[in-house]
Amino acid sequence: MVQAGDVLPELIAAALAREGLALQDRDVLVVAQKIVSKAEGRTVDLATVTPSARATELGGEIGKDARLVEVILSESVRVVRTRPNLLIVEHRLGFVMANAGVDQSNVAPQDGAHRVLLLPRDPDASAESLRSRLAELSGARVAVIINDSFGRAWRRGTCGIAIGAAGLPALIDLRGRPDLFGRTLEVSIIGFADEIAAAASLLMGQADEARPVVLVRGLDWSLPPTNAHELVRPEAEDLFR
Amino acid sequence: MVQAGDVLPELIAAALAREGLALQDRDVLVVAQKIVSKAEGRTVDLATVTPSARATELGGEIGKDARLVEVILSESVRVVRTRPNLLIVEHRLGFVMANAGVDQSNVAPQDGAHRVLLLPRDPDASAESLRSRLAELSGARVAVIINDSFGRAWRRGTCGIAIGAAGLPALIDLRGRPDLFGRTLEVSIIGFADEIAAAASLLMGQADEARPVVLVRGLDWSLPPTNAHELVRPEAEDLFR
Repeated sequence: MVQAGDVLPELIAAALAREGLALQDRDVLVVAQKIVSKAEGRTVDLATVTPSARATELGGEIGKDARLVEVILSESVRVVRTRPNLLIVEHRLGFVMANAGVDQSNVAPQDGAHRVLLLPRDPDASAESLRSRLAELSGARVAVIINDSFGRAWRRGTCGIAIGAAGLPALIDLRGRPDLFGRTLEVSIIGFADEIAAAASLLMGQADEARPVVLVRGLDWSLPPTNAHELVRPEAEDLFR
Repeated sequence: MVQAGDVLPELIAAALAREGLALQDRDVLVVAQKIVSKAEGRTVDLATVTPSARATELGGEIGKDARLVEVILSESVRVVRTRPNLLIVEHRLGFVMANAGVDQSNVAPQDGAHRVLLLPRDPDASAESLRSRLAELSGARVAVIINDSFGRAWRRGTCGIAIGAAGLPALIDLRGRPDLFGRTLEVSIIGFADEIAAAASLLMGQADEARPVVLVRGLDWSLPPTNAHELVRPEAEDLFR
């Protein structure tokens, strides 16, 4: 159970040691958003929130606690769609997502407070901080991804994606490389960090079996590292917002 | 190099035998859409295509070969968005995707023909057919996913998803299960087959290193099998089409 102020790299290093695992170059540690947010103290007690007029109106329209709507709006730059009990927003980090990632599950109840958990303030910076400290502790050039479960516009069910990344290329651009018959591939940019995030989500579980850190070993890449912001489609390219 | 008429389960079984791998219960074989489409002979030679007036007009508008546009439209039930050289359509199977999945890369050039590859006619049926024959050949209760790389509305880069599935639940519905603190999870439906498809995509590669079948071992599930059609968001739930 990670709590505010916990030092994640040390916790992760200790957990790896308990499993008898030594980090190697190109290991990717996928870390669940929830424990990063918890360690960073990104909780809000709804009892302390005074909803704005806009949050009260919107909460009434969609049947959602106005204080929770206030927190969601405070994390967002625009509302993209609304439905009963659902707000799809553009998060201040550019993610188009349900409820700005504000989450009520798996947050410890305490003193009658009704606490909710926000995304990390800057998940790429969090990933970089984890990466550099884990590299220091292990001596290995590791990469870090912070993942979260996102809905999709045209697919049912959530899929893990990378909201933060450090130490690996978030996208792999194959354009210009030859296909199997020597012709140039026209369109092939792979969401590399998202595919790794999805793979790790399979092992993380959501409830009683929660496993908030997954070690991915055996991947390789040749491009320089970027961060997960690269995976956010800029508004100018967006056909659906 | 898979060709029309090749019998995929036998090819896969032979490849596994060469690797010294015996299939086990709950093994998931992820098979690239391209080899399924090739084995099923889903190629069209553009030289044989006469574009309709609509395809000619649309091709002119977006700067795309009218014969290719004709093939894309023949696989689609509606055009969702258009941009230069890009058609986002609703495929007849419900997928919202670029160019109806019609692909020009990695199709063998032959006799001056300009061949393109369509999605399998019924990927869930293809997955079930592969599953049942592989189960027969191996004696193991395996699952099969047919994956393809899809773009996303708000994310850059493609990610593997399941266009066909058999032998496992495509979605895992955790609603009603307790979270870590014993409260009921509100919204947790996981795109299980999509996360497996993404994980396998990491290993498949796109070009010279193509590896069109990936064996995923160690997953578990308790829900009954469904198919990948379950992952397609019905139009009534769709906020963005």
